Amino acid sequence: MQARLFLFLSAFLAFAADAATDPRALIERYQHDHPGKGKFAEHWQPIPIQRYWNPRNFYRPPKTVRGEVGRDQCVACHEGVTPGFVRAWRDSTHANLDRIRTLPDDDVRAYKKTLLAEVEADLVRQGLLEAGEHLAQVGCIDCHGGIGKDKIRHDRDLRMPDRSVCGTCHVRQFAEAESEKAQTWPQNQWPQGHPSHAVDWKANVETAVWAAMAEREIAQGCDMCHYQQNKCDGCHTRHSFSAAEARRPEACATCHNGVDHNEFENYLLSKHGTVYQTHKDRWNFEVPLKEALTRGGYTAPTCQLCHFEYRGRFGHNLVRKVRWGFNPTPAIADNLDHPWFRKRLDAWVGTCSQCHSPRFARTWLETADRGILAGLKVEQEAKRVVQKLYDDGLLVGQKRDRPRPPAPVQDAPGGFFQLFWARGNNPSRVERIYAEMWEHDLIKLYKGLVHANPGGFTYSEGWSPLLRDYAEIMDENTRLREGGGARRAALAEIVNLAGADLRLPLGLALVAGGLVVLGRRR
Amino acid sequence: MQARLFLFLSAFLAFAADAATDPRALIERYQHDHPGKGKFAEHWQPIPIQRYWNPRNFYRPPKTVRGEVGRDQCVACHEGVTPGFVRAWRDSTHANLDRIRTLPDDDVRAYKKTLLAEVEADLVRQGLLEAGEHLAQVGCIDCHGGIGKDKIRHDRDLRMPDRSVCGTCHVRQFAEAESEKAQTWPQNQWPQGHPSHAVDWKANVETAVWAAMAEREIAQGCDMCHYQQNKCDGCHTRHSFSAAEARRPEACATCHNGVDHNEFENYLLSKHGTVYQTHKDRWNFEVPLKEALTRGGYTAPTCQLCHFEYRGRFGHNLVRKVRWGFNPTPAIADNLDHPWFRKRLDAWVGTCSQCHSPRFARTWLETADRGILAGLKVEQEAKRVVQKLYDDGLLVGQKRDRPRPPAPVQDAPGGFFQLFWARGNNPSRVERIYAEMWEHDLIKLYKGLVHANPGGFTYSEGWSPLLRDYAEIMDENTRLREGGGARRAALAEIVNLAGADLRLPLGLALVAGGLVVLGRRR
Amino acid sequence: MQARLFLFLSAFLAFAADAATDPRALIERYQHDHPGKGKFAEHWQPIPIQRYWNPRNFYRPPKTVRGEVGRDQCVACHEGVTPGFVRAWRDSTHANLDRIRTLPDDDVRAYKKTLLAEVEADLVRQGLLEAGEHLAQVGCIDCHGGIGKDKIRHDRDLRMPDRSVCGTCHVRQFAEAESEKAQTWPQNQWPQGHPSHAVDWKANVETAVWAAMAEREIAQGCDMCHYQQNKCDGCHTRHSFSAAEARRPEACATCHNGVDHNEFENYLLSKHGTVYQTHKDRWNFEVPLKEALTRGGYTAPTCQLCHFEYRGRFGHNLVRKVRWGFNPTPAIADNLDHPWFRKRLDAWVGTCSQCHSPRFARTWLETADRGILAGLKVEQEAKRVVQKLYDDGLLVGQKRDRPRPPAPVQDAPGGFFQLFWARGNNPSRVERIYAEMWEHDLIKLYKGLVHANPGGFTYSEGWSPLLRDYAEIMDENTRLREGGGARRAALAEIVNLAGADLRLPLGLALVAGGLVVLGRRR
Repeated sequence: MQARLFLFLSAFLAFAADAATDPRALIERYQHDHPGKGKFAEHWQPIPIQRYWNPRNFYRPPKTVRGEVGRDQCVACHEGVTPGFVRAWRDSTHANLDRIRTLPDDDVRAYKKTLLAEVEADLVRQGLLEAGEHLAQVGCIDCHGGIGKDKIRHDRDLRMPDRSVCGTCHVRQFAEAESEKAQTWPQNQWPQGHPSHAVDWKANVETAVWAAMAEREIAQGCDMCHYQQNKCDGCHTRHSFSAAEARRPEACATCHNGVDHNEFENYLLSKHGTVYQTHKDRWNFEVPLKEALTRGGYTAPTCQLCHFEYRGRFGHNLVRKVRWGFNPTPAIADNLDHPWFRKRLDAWVGTCSQCHSPRFARTWLETADRGILAGLKVEQEAKRVVQKLYDDGLLVGQKRDRPRPPAPVQDAPGGFFQLFWARGNNPSRVERIYAEMWEHDLIKLYKGLVHANPGGFTYSEGWSPLLRDYAEIMDENTRLREGGGARRAALAEIVNLAGADLRLPLGLALVAGGLVVLGRRR
Repeated sequence: MQARLFLFLSAFLAFAADAATDPRALIERYQHDHPGKGKFAEHWQPIPIQRYWNPRNFYRPPKTVRGEVGRDQCVACHEGVTPGFVRAWRDSTHANLDRIRTLPDDDVRAYKKTLLAEVEADLVRQGLLEAGEHLAQVGCIDCHGGIGKDKIRHDRDLRMPDRSVCGTCHVRQFAEAESEKAQTWPQNQWPQGHPSHAVDWKANVETAVWAAMAEREIAQGCDMCHYQQNKCDGCHTRHSFSAAEARRPEACATCHNGVDHNEFENYLLSKHGTVYQTHKDRWNFEVPLKEALTRGGYTAPTCQLCHFEYRGRFGHNLVRKVRWGFNPTPAIADNLDHPWFRKRLDAWVGTCSQCHSPRFARTWLETADRGILAGLKVEQEAKRVVQKLYDDGLLVGQKRDRPRPPAPVQDAPGGFFQLFWARGNNPSRVERIYAEMWEHDLIKLYKGLVHANPGGFTYSEGWSPLLRDYAEIMDENTRLREGGGARRAALAEIVNLAGADLRLPLGLALVAGGLVVLGRRR
Repeated sequence: MQARLFLFLSAFLAFAADAATDPRALIERYQHDHPGKGKFAEHWQPIPIQRYWNPRNFYRPPKTVRGEVGRDQCVACHEGVTPGFVRAWRDSTHANLDRIRTLPDDDVRAYKKTLLAEVEADLVRQGLLEAGEHLAQVGCIDCHGGIGKDKIRHDRDLRMPDRSVCGTCHVRQFAEAESEKAQTWPQNQWPQGHPSHAVDWKANVETAVWAAMAEREIAQGCDMCHYQQNKCDGCHTRHSFSAAEARRPEACATCHNGVDHNEFENYLLSKHGTVYQTHKDRWNFEVPLKEALTRGGYTAPTCQLCHFEYRGRFGHNLVRKVRWGFNPTPAIADNLDHPWFRKRLDAWVGTCSQCHSPRFARTWLETADRGILAGLKVEQEAKRVVQKLYDDGLLVGQKRDRPRPPAPVQDAPGGFFQLFWARGNNPSRVERIYAEMWEHDLIKLYKGLVHANPGGFTYSEGWSPLLRDYAEIMDENTRLREGGGARRAALAEIVNLAGADLRLPLGLALVAGGLVVLGRRR
């Protein structure tokens, strides 16, 4: 165990050292770690739109524009063809880096001067810029052809940038983001690096049902969020690439909303979010996060202020305080006293103490934990009931019309795949309810608690829907079991028919009925 | 067919020509086409509030203020009685048209000078303004009494303006909006002009269940969106009548949200919407749509930028690119290769190419189409299952407690009326699920796809709820059919009764009974 | 009756007089009326986080900082420990009251000069300020130690302020808010003072299921909204304590959203809300509500503009126009013609007439009433069906697995507790559906109507979901009753059994059974 820890720490330190000294090593490691189509590659083929979600593996340039194009031609031509993205770029920092260099020192964006110098130094180290040379702009060709190139063949060399293209200039941010892969759970609750933006494409392509689904156009919808491992424009939308945009809660909203991870809704309805909404006009999102509460004038947190922070410093590793990891399970619940979890709780206390007393912070976090445990207990009871129905063969249609799910999915009662695939009586109704219970209700309960949205864990979402699904499952359990028992009970009941006054007519009726039946037999 | 097309084109060109030359003809045509109470008029009576949703047919002036009132008296009196709307008008362009005339030419609103000159020219053509005369303001009496009138009798002449009142001045916009009525579907998937704002009142009053409902106060809620055919303040809220307001996505939200047309939610959660939310403070909504991406600084589309655009020009006809028409059906799905649909797809590629490469645009649109087809297939299978249950008389209560819906509704399993009317076992549970499946799940799947909101078509809405309802329907189907078979199975089970403790008495009883029976049989 | 009214009026006038003359009496009355743990106190124990929701009863200072701290030390130390809240305070009016005193008279906030003078006069009356003395600031120690104190013992004297601490300075606002307790329903539809912010903690602790729940961390979530009786920072978030914030709709959102009181969603999607969203950048929230439509430039109402208004004046009593009281019931529906309700309707007409004609206002309000009555009728029919199933013992599992809810809850079919508690077959499925029908669907129908959100009462929420739950309940009713009848029907069906090969054994079995029955009869 100690040996393993030592090995891991060595690897991590080597990795950190790489980042500090060698951008090329960082890029190579990124490319080496990239899963491509992943372990279920044989089960699916990419469809055309996927070239944009994973350009590294699937992008090929169009053949519509042939021959060489030079640095100046991109804008000249695309201003007519696709004016919107050219305009966004023109208004961006990339279009004119002197906008940074000429900022007065008391401008809140003046910190970008240092960042720009860092970028230039890193390019010099990579031989992509002459020592002493200054970048004038980041043009189309730099990202879509190659940094510093003068011309490319449009039909052969055009590329859609991946994380490592952005990371060639933005080395520090790239290294921070990649460091999420170092996350290791002490009891293997999640695989190495998971869950994190840095491996979200891997998580995507290695989810069995998404590989199995015949409806590829639906399945690619998952890519539309699970591509942060591939690209940086999930938060810094092309072609503005704005840090200020990425500091606002709405930047997280496209992915962090909905039935199984409603963080955005919880934030907006929490006190944090209502203060954001009522005060944001006076906040300055151009300031770096470390100055948010001072020069930025924030009077409440954003997503970024809490999730980019770790022990007082801010960076693109968002998983250093993850504890419940998107999905409350017994394997986490049973280990909250382990130092790994304790230390992360302590880090959270520090985060909340930016604005709250440490006692308040710890009290709230412990309250949230116990609330999650209460929900988990209900869900686990329901799980046993559904499993037993399956084991007893009592699910509706289980013996007559339960097709197997397509490979590589394994059949299981209430499995995740049942949220995306159905045929005949697979899933049966009670299984689907259970699948939503663990994947939606319980997760929303947890997300509502940790984001301090009262209606989000008590009533509108969370506890009350969890108990509704519990009640549905218990009701189904009783019906399905009485369905079997009913026939057995029927004879005894006929014999023991309670009303003594019914026995004469019933007996006569039975005898008569029997005679009629026998009569018809002839 | 060609003859019909020719006739239609002639009519359309005549219509377009009218618009260019004769505002009166436009108004007369509008009034002539207006359905009033529609074809189900005998089935319902308007309630008082409806005078405001369809003033043309239902409004009568109040008797509270009698006698003549002059132009200046409106504001003098209403400033005290109803200060809010007077204030909104005072701050509007209508209150002082010199605000337009004095704009410097480089003001983004300077285009309104041309519009104002157009308005004046159109009024001159109608004899409502002397040649060379300038409008000073549009006052209360102009819209609520008659353009240019000096006084009206408040209890007799007061009117609530309809589309044609606004259109008397805003002729071009009125003509654009009315041109939606020219839409003709190649395989009659929808009736002429439908679906569109220009006939939304007709669609409203000619929906059978809304005419049939006894609860008129609920039914009038549909009017509150389905009145764009009657009035212009659905987007340009009285009494600001602001173009800038109508250019913002929230202007569409009151009507375009919810269970069967969640466009607003999809937009807000898409990348388009999050960029709007994070950047809108820097966008200028006073610029006309054609300058949105340049002088307006938009870095993402609004509803208006895509839906008002057609082949590079902007106007109030929003249906020129409609393809799936609010409701994916086989009649559309089977004809997507028809030139009518192909041409519209091409127009969409042009729209998206304002900001995206044409290849990206086409790839996305084709992905969306195939995703919709995948959903339609699931829905159609469920439809057959429910229809068969109905044909077999197996729906819960179908033989004992299925009241007929009120006229003019026709009974049908899973019909639209079952979303608004219920009595006894009509609808049964499985029908209501199916009604929601085709009207909610499938439409949301389509809306999520075309608005590029990933959670909106994969998981939170769309595919996953569609499959839940599929699983529910299949589960019900099995139960309802086993309900018939169960009794047949009962006897075999009695004979095979598992409980050993029952076998002896049962066997003895059978032997005894058999002897008696056989004895008597002889 | 007249006597009671006289007594009540006397009490109310005395109360009002107290407020005008004696802040101490107001505070004492507040403290005297406070329910503490409430009538179910024996059933639950507070958990640590609750010390912040009800500091009056549960707060104890931490022991981490010992000894005396002086006025200047708070900020010096907390600037390092908890910088966020110190910064919010620094930017607030409390930090420097001269910001108020030096406002030019034409500043929209100049009205605060008068408020500040009022505060000082009230403090002089209480002996907390010397006559002629001016407050320089409201520092940490004033609220958390005692007004005007120079030092406190941190581990013994530190307090979290309650309503009466804020009310010591803000006497008028405190008196307005406390006057909600005077609300008396004419037919006792609600207890004295209910529903209102002034008694929301009492409502909270005296709701049986919340006292009964074992999961205290979930139950405390209700406190997070139901604490307005205890504290003022529900709307004026600490430590900005901003009036401008509290005037914005989002300030209400944390509590007024969700499954049984979706006011915020209805507002945002109504025309009122979309105008707010599209125009708010030009509105000035620093102006007092009475100037909102004039100097504030509002072109639509906020929550506050309507709910703080009563007969043309604005104040912190929000219940003077309450009619349906959060929950449409026959006891309200049957009495809408009573003068108490009529007068409140008239007051609403006045409110809406700030912007709408009085005829429009009254017509809308009467439409809303009738729409609510239509929904109530459906709900009451469903209620009778569920009650009858319970009375007949036909609910799933009713006879075999219906645990009693924990004390102090009383068991009842479809009771409120079934939204928060479940065990075995309590609640059964049909009960839970009914509980959601009356508590969610019907209330949303009403809230959608009164907030003029068309999709909120017709379709997405309200009527259509209400009818879905009606259909579910009728479907269940038929199944559960046929379940009883099925056995009776079985016999007839057995006789007609189709399979000829089964007739011999069946005849024998029936005859045997008949003989056994007849034998037992003897």
